Amino acid sequence: METVVVTGVAGFIGSNLADHLLAKGYKVLGLDNFSTGKTKFLESANNHPNFKLIVCDLSDINSFKDSLSGYDCVFHLAANADVRFGLEHPRKDLEQNTLVTFNVLEAMRVNNIKKIVYSSTGSIYGESQIIPTPEDCPMPIQTSLYAASKISCESMIQAYCEGFEFQSWIFRFVSVLGERYTHGHVIDFYSKLKKNPNKLHVLGNGHQQKSYIYIQDCILGMMMGVEKADNKVNIFNLGTEESIEVLDSIEVIKEFMNVQPEIITQNSIRGWVGDNPLILLDINKIKSLGWMPKLSIKNGIQKTLEWLENNKWFFEDLEK
Amino acid sequence: METVVVTGVAGFIGSNLADHLLAKGYKVLGLDNFSTGKTKFLESANNHPNFKLIVCDLSDINSFKDSLSGYDCVFHLAANADVRFGLEHPRKDLEQNTLVTFNVLEAMRVNNIKKIVYSSTGSIYGESQIIPTPEDCPMPIQTSLYAASKISCESMIQAYCEGFEFQSWIFRFVSVLGERYTHGHVIDFYSKLKKNPNKLHVLGNGHQQKSYIYIQDCILGMMMGVEKADNKVNIFNLGTEESIEVLDSIEVIKEFMNVQPEIITQNSIRGWVGDNPLILLDINKIKSLGWMPKLSIKNGIQKTLEWLENNKWFFEDLEK
Repeated sequence: METVVVTGVAGFIGSNLADHLLAKGYKVLGLDNFSTGKTKFLESANNHPNFKLIVCDLSDINSFKDSLSGYDCVFHLAANADVRFGLEHPRKDLEQNTLVTFNVLEAMRVNNIKKIVYSSTGSIYGESQIIPTPEDCPMPIQTSLYAASKISCESMIQAYCEGFEFQSWIFRFVSVLGERYTHGHVIDFYSKLKKNPNKLHVLGNGHQQKSYIYIQDCILGMMMGVEKADNKVNIFNLGTEESIEVLDSIEVIKEFMNVQPEIITQNSIRGWVGDNPLILLDINKIKSLGWMPKLSIKNGIQKTLEWLENNKWFFEDLEK
Repeated sequence: METVVVTGVAGFIGSNLADHLLAKGYKVLGLDNFSTGKTKFLESANNHPNFKLIVCDLSDINSFKDSLSGYDCVFHLAANADVRFGLEHPRKDLEQNTLVTFNVLEAMRVNNIKKIVYSSTGSIYGESQIIPTPEDCPMPIQTSLYAASKISCESMIQAYCEGFEFQSWIFRFVSVLGERYTHGHVIDFYSKLKKNPNKLHVLGNGHQQKSYIYIQDCILGMMMGVEKADNKVNIFNLGTEESIEVLDSIEVIKEFMNVQPEIITQNSIRGWVGDNPLILLDINKIKSLGWMPKLSIKNGIQKTLEWLENNKWFFEDLEK
């Protein structure tokens, strides 16, 4: 595999992955519609001779199908990546995840591209009874439209592997932190505290235990899985071996920002409908290939905050 | 629950279910686009004062949304029910199952209908390592686009339960046999033997072990589940406690038709890509509610053959 396509290339994970792949000598075709992606995330990639960018909308297969010709593998990262607001627009996860993934699979099929790497999510485990949750846990009940769309995508990918001799690497991430981080609890709290350093409202009681992974660890884990696993369908959790309470995350943020807000929590174990109060993935399967996350969750949060501090343009864009 | 909607009402399971519900005193609104449904299957229902039929296409939400107003529950049976030919038209399962189910969920939401009964399939277990396969088996790998679409539908239904306070009963059927049976191995073999009683070609080596359930057992199982299970999401396998080899099915058919064809098998354990060589569901969960299938697989096959013999119009339609 030497030539690869990265969908969602201007996003948080996509742009970091593109930089990594280019540094490793791959020829990279990046696709993005810039609905949430940022041109600035591609500053480095755009200067690389092996990078080509096509602005297109994956919901229109004809806008990108022909451009895939000749590539070996697709890293399909483009997605609506928001788990929290699915109920406000129930069609969004279906359209941007399920239907787009089908288009990507069909575009691959007509171009005879057989390898797909897919960014799924630990959210598909719903509120698993088994913690840490392994890849082969009992069939879960879905608790969000986001995760429902991701399991739909996983399932279609698997069916293409069986039916059209594709090979797939499906990675179920916990939330990712680090440079170019674009949404999630760190930015929410950072943003709120920038506006008012004296008071911080928390969704839920703050005792939700979440797990996070640093972006570079995440990318090295994906590359390790792709290089070393060779089944028809290869599924790996990607996370750290720890979880952190929301209130403890806030401590890290307070310390970094040097603020002492009053913390106002709610009397519920979930922050919103579909919020999973306890996330911790079993990562033994990917570890058995020789991978280990290098950064702790605390370090990941700090890296994220440093990036936000050093990239005020992004934060200002967000506030517009 | 007194007023119900049945989608796919002119199909095999839908029409039998409608007859059952009407006999039990329910008011039934039936929806069908008659793409595979048969007007003749509704002869009895159409004569019932509590039955109303609307011909509509569920892929167009505006064609049926308003008609759901005032109903208590939707039995969503409309689907592309063919597992074998998905690879010939990869978009069909996505469109007729995933997208249609989303439309049904949205139509329910705007009409404030909170209860959904869904016909899923044992195919979603793929080639399970656990036989008989229970509802909470380890997360499977999908092997067909049909099953991928069904797991997508299950997942969206579950997310609507969590997000919009729906309540669902999801039934994972083995193949169903009996009156108004419209497709599957019995009709395939019956049809072939009608044309040539001396020779029968079998897909695969004939040792595939499949499980079947008789339509009336299936309906009583669904009704039992709906009446007695009251969780937010209720998932039940529906099958018999036996499987039967394809070659043994053929013996039943040969005996019924009084023919002695030469049987020509292939040298493969699967009959087609995605064919599951061993299907047997664990039905202890639905049994614990007091339900038991009454007919054996052999009896189910015989009932199907009797119906085919007594309904030559159907068979003749099929041959057109």
